[in-house]
Amino acid sequence: MTLAVGVIGTGMIGQDHIRRLTQVLSGARVVAVTDIDRDRAAAAAPEGAKVFDTPQALVRSDTVEAVVICSWGPAHEEQLLDCIAAGKPVFCEKPLVTSEAAALRVMEAEVAFGHRLVQVGFMRRFDADYRRLKAVIDGGTLGAPLMYHSVHRNASVPEGLYTSDMPLNDTLVHDADISRWLLSDEITGVEVRLPRRSRQGGELRDPHIVLLHMAGGAVVDVEISVNIAYGYDIRGEVSCETGVAALPNRPATVISDMHGIRQAIPADWRERFIEAYDQEFREWIAAAGQGTATGPSTWDGYAATLVADAALRAVSSGNLEVVGMREKPDLYSQQPRLAA
Amino acid sequence: MTLAVGVIGTGMIGQDHIRRLTQVLSGARVVAVTDIDRDRAAAAAPEGAKVFDTPQALVRSDTVEAVVICSWGPAHEEQLLDCIAAGKPVFCEKPLVTSEAAALRVMEAEVAFGHRLVQVGFMRRFDADYRRLKAVIDGGTLGAPLMYHSVHRNASVPEGLYTSDMPLNDTLVHDADISRWLLSDEITGVEVRLPRRSRQGGELRDPHIVLLHMAGGAVVDVEISVNIAYGYDIRGEVSCETGVAALPNRPATVISDMHGIRQAIPADWRERFIEAYDQEFREWIAAAGQGTATGPSTWDGYAATLVADAALRAVSSGNLEVVGMREKPDLYSQQPRLAA
Amino acid sequence: MTLAVGVIGTGMIGQDHIRRLTQVLSGARVVAVTDIDRDRAAAAAPEGAKVFDTPQALVRSDTVEAVVICSWGPAHEEQLLDCIAAGKPVFCEKPLVTSEAAALRVMEAEVAFGHRLVQVGFMRRFDADYRRLKAVIDGGTLGAPLMYHSVHRNASVPEGLYTSDMPLNDTLVHDADISRWLLSDEITGVEVRLPRRSRQGGELRDPHIVLLHMAGGAVVDVEISVNIAYGYDIRGEVSCETGVAALPNRPATVISDMHGIRQAIPADWRERFIEAYDQEFREWIAAAGQGTATGPSTWDGYAATLVADAALRAVSSGNLEVVGMREKPDLYSQQPRLAA
Amino acid sequence: MTLAVGVIGTGMIGQDHIRRLTQVLSGARVVAVTDIDRDRAAAAAPEGAKVFDTPQALVRSDTVEAVVICSWGPAHEEQLLDCIAAGKPVFCEKPLVTSEAAALRVMEAEVAFGHRLVQVGFMRRFDADYRRLKAVIDGGTLGAPLMYHSVHRNASVPEGLYTSDMPLNDTLVHDADISRWLLSDEITGVEVRLPRRSRQGGELRDPHIVLLHMAGGAVVDVEISVNIAYGYDIRGEVSCETGVAALPNRPATVISDMHGIRQAIPADWRERFIEAYDQEFREWIAAAGQGTATGPSTWDGYAATLVADAALRAVSSGNLEVVGMREKPDLYSQQPRLAA
Repeated sequence: MTLAVGVIGTGMIGQDHIRRLTQVLSGARVVAVTDIDRDRAAAAAPEGAKVFDTPQALVRSDTVEAVVICSWGPAHEEQLLDCIAAGKPVFCEKPLVTSEAAALRVMEAEVAFGHRLVQVGFMRRFDADYRRLKAVIDGGTLGAPLMYHSVHRNASVPEGLYTSDMPLNDTLVHDADISRWLLSDEITGVEVRLPRRSRQGGELRDPHIVLLHMAGGAVVDVEISVNIAYGYDIRGEVSCETGVAALPNRPATVISDMHGIRQAIPADWRERFIEAYDQEFREWIAAAGQGTATGPSTWDGYAATLVADAALRAVSSGNLEVVGMREKPDLYSQQPRLAA
Repeated sequence: MTLAVGVIGTGMIGQDHIRRLTQVLSGARVVAVTDIDRDRAAAAAPEGAKVFDTPQALVRSDTVEAVVICSWGPAHEEQLLDCIAAGKPVFCEKPLVTSEAAALRVMEAEVAFGHRLVQVGFMRRFDADYRRLKAVIDGGTLGAPLMYHSVHRNASVPEGLYTSDMPLNDTLVHDADISRWLLSDEITGVEVRLPRRSRQGGELRDPHIVLLHMAGGAVVDVEISVNIAYGYDIRGEVSCETGVAALPNRPATVISDMHGIRQAIPADWRERFIEAYDQEFREWIAAAGQGTATGPSTWDGYAATLVADAALRAVSSGNLEVVGMREKPDLYSQQPRLAA
Repeated sequence: MTLAVGVIGTGMIGQDHIRRLTQVLSGARVVAVTDIDRDRAAAAAPEGAKVFDTPQALVRSDTVEAVVICSWGPAHEEQLLDCIAAGKPVFCEKPLVTSEAAALRVMEAEVAFGHRLVQVGFMRRFDADYRRLKAVIDGGTLGAPLMYHSVHRNASVPEGLYTSDMPLNDTLVHDADISRWLLSDEITGVEVRLPRRSRQGGELRDPHIVLLHMAGGAVVDVEISVNIAYGYDIRGEVSCETGVAALPNRPATVISDMHGIRQAIPADWRERFIEAYDQEFREWIAAAGQGTATGPSTWDGYAATLVADAALRAVSSGNLEVVGMREKPDLYSQQPRLAA
Repeated sequence: MTLAVGVIGTGMIGQDHIRRLTQVLSGARVVAVTDIDRDRAAAAAPEGAKVFDTPQALVRSDTVEAVVICSWGPAHEEQLLDCIAAGKPVFCEKPLVTSEAAALRVMEAEVAFGHRLVQVGFMRRFDADYRRLKAVIDGGTLGAPLMYHSVHRNASVPEGLYTSDMPLNDTLVHDADISRWLLSDEITGVEVRLPRRSRQGGELRDPHIVLLHMAGGAVVDVEISVNIAYGYDIRGEVSCETGVAALPNRPATVISDMHGIRQAIPADWRERFIEAYDQEFREWIAAAGQGTATGPSTWDGYAATLVADAALRAVSSGNLEVVGMREKPDLYSQQPRLAA
């Protein structure tokens, strides 16, 4: 009755998902874990869960009904293909894969299988603020969306570990995915502009202004600042034909004191999106229990890969770089229907 | 491993709690239900749950580890006493009981039992906005709280069913409980003032201004409007010695259109407090699993009963009506400590 | 063509009004000044203005068309009566007079004169925020106003100089006047509650909660905090039958930094109401140029005196103290009509 | 003592400035008017003002100390050169002139004259919200400004009269000028992107996204929507190294009703900037009274001309168009010092 889940990769994010599946949400239990570090896997395994030596063995085990992939990106392709071969629903953390070719291979396998199995971890789509924003846009009372201003600000990034490609490779992909989802449209081109460099990040290329051109003509302008010190501040505003809709302030206590009338800003993505992560897995459990997936798809992971590639090219070229997506398989055009 | 719960009363709120325990939260399952309407109980029972003929039988059943009471108020006393006699943790919806004498009897039984078993359903204490507000006050950076302005506005109340005592008996109790909790203090007196009557509610006595006098000297002024048409609007602002802290707007999409720049207001308490209900039960499950209770206690239910009684007297007398609470048993002065 | 103004009292506020009439506003010039300190008067006199030895001489001078009274309160009655005797429009700073009897004498003199000459300095009525708020209430779309919550917070008051009667005598009068004006109604009773004392003001009685009962049944609750440290924070919210209207945040820059997302709060009344003072005199000049007055009247100054007296009695008695106003002279029931 | 002003052009904006100088502000009087339509000039002339047949005659008249130019753009150059030749301070409405060559001729004449005489009508610099925003940026506590997001939304523009060049020629110039002023920097390049066209404006090219590249490296992205129906909504947000500063909501009444909790948005530029216009002329009068000018200069008008030209080229080319300004004359590098 409850979904038997196997977790591949028991680092920080893997451990957090194990906690979520075990202690927070109903409907699932973690029955299997594996990690390149066997001790770490053993330590992270909840009571009764079996520690596997390899991802492949875990995926193929009869006790595992669905898989959560939290390994590092380069390992995802093989693990995803294994899951598809085994016909098992799989949640895969970002990035789906690390190259366009790999994304296409996974997509082809899933299409050949015949229905969706893969959900990729774009958690913003499960955030209540974004969902309300999308509902307003989709409601149509403001007319067609023409522009979207997306603001992505990190308080800081790990010095040394976070390189100049990462604002586009790791950070922009969230804005790109949420733009596609909010506007129900695809990205066809990317431009990047580099404002004066912030002294907060030393030699790091920061901030960025990115323009995403959508197939339907809307233009998205993204501000990415990854060392802005004051907090993790995610903003979004859609300008439509007859009105504008925007993400609200986070619901922090309104304090009036010597600093003015004010509300705290989240410190990091954990604080900002913790409920979104819960909801993401709630919906994954529901779909996986029926042998399929409903959230962000392989197609969405493929799109993210192409946009990040184009953004990196755009930094070098200074030009508009085209995002050339293949034709969309039917599989990704409709939401799987779940039984009530 | 998961808590085996029996539910007494399968009306609207009982059904909602069954859904919550079964489909939303981890750690509990509903194994038993009962209702004065046996068919309704049978219809509400999840797969595998047994339908009992009487509350007493349900409480005494060996398969039931903890109880949720959603019956009507006058039945609560007996059911609570049964649970205490059986040594079983129990969640009891508001009102705890319907008289001071009954509250004292339940309290004496629980004190005699020796540790807390009862949690009463004041869900606001589990709301994230209120919790952050309390954290600011308790943090002490704004100095001592001196005044609290609590605003309780209902869009509408059921005509005919909702009588003129109910703004004080059913509605004020939330503001009273949250005042006691936010200010970590007891109410010692109640005054009620009746502004010009709203034509929205016909002959209903509405709105009310209520002053709650706290033992430590703080004064709470409460606005209660139960037919204000525009929405369910819950506000609270604590004035301290060197600053002020208030509940924020709800995190609705910020829309700019012909009506201005605006955010939607919740329609009703379900929309406003749905996450608070989930959290309330999450914490109840954790404590009940260890044989005790941690949230609002029998003492809090007793206080609410006395405040509502005083408020009703204050309407008649026009005077300050004293809330005379008995001495607080040690049992209610400390939080039960849960194992990690 | 421009109004020839004589100013009585050249202390801080008198000097500020001279600056306003001379350098900021069109349509007036200061032709005469007087002060109990002749040197101070001479120093404050703008070029071409004559320094008079006595208020009486200034008022009676043919060169003076209209008078501004900025002397201390106890001197106002005689100066106002002189102005009325001379038939000259007069702007009088708060308080109009310092006793009910004096207020009645001024009122009788003005009524006997036959049209309005006196404007009293309640500058809030000229503040754009309050005016927009009143326009919403008067527009009627929210139904009748039933409650008004008025918040009056001073960062600090001068220690030693500011005594425990002054929150009611000097501060409350603003909330009382604005309540009468916003609700288009009279105050019939006053209650005062004393919350726990703030340690910010030493022995000073602070804060206060004041309830004002309006003739039409609305109830106003006022929070007065005069030592709240963080700023000069003036708030007001009117609860009506089908909606609520409130003063907005002041239009300060929205800053996101380590203190959160925030807006500065005014430091004091000068910063908060500077435009209101300008507008107050702009309208006074327009009316005085036509030999009359249109703003807050002798009647309003009389009401303020009675409310302050009742509030002080209410502190002593702990009871509702009645505000017994005489019948309203016709003179004060209609706005004087100005030529275009 | 009061400044004797001559007004050239008595259309809508000229009439409004006559009203402002005559009825609102102190320190100036209108002594002369002229217009291509002599009857319109005569009708607009305040009492005692002389109607001149030509701008040249007005400028040269001994009774005129300073000039306000409200004629149409192509006439400005000659009138400005006349004022400079006569050594008279002059306020000139936008656009300063209509070509780069004309701007250079006016600049050369003023430089040859030896001190500033010209103020150009960029009124936003006098708006209190923008001034506070600039004070925060200049204060430096947020670090260097790296990006500025400027939003310019008109409810509607006159169909037929407002052509597709005007969003850049007439509207963008405000955002460009305020960007230069806020960031204390010059624009070196302009890019324009055309999102999906709004159906609100028929064939009109709308909206626009414009990128302004500043000499110091900051990038400004401007949203221009001229037919967005819901109001005149002017927004601005500066992203700095360690924080963000933004224009606040306008201080409209906060209404809670069936449309949510909301504040009205200005209907048009008159409502939004009325105080800014007053302040603009207040400061002009002060400087003109001392024979000079302090606000936006000929240099600023020249910059606006170049930016608009570059923006129009950028629409055609799709590329970054360079703004090549001549070297800045010393005259425009320092503010004229006014006597106290």
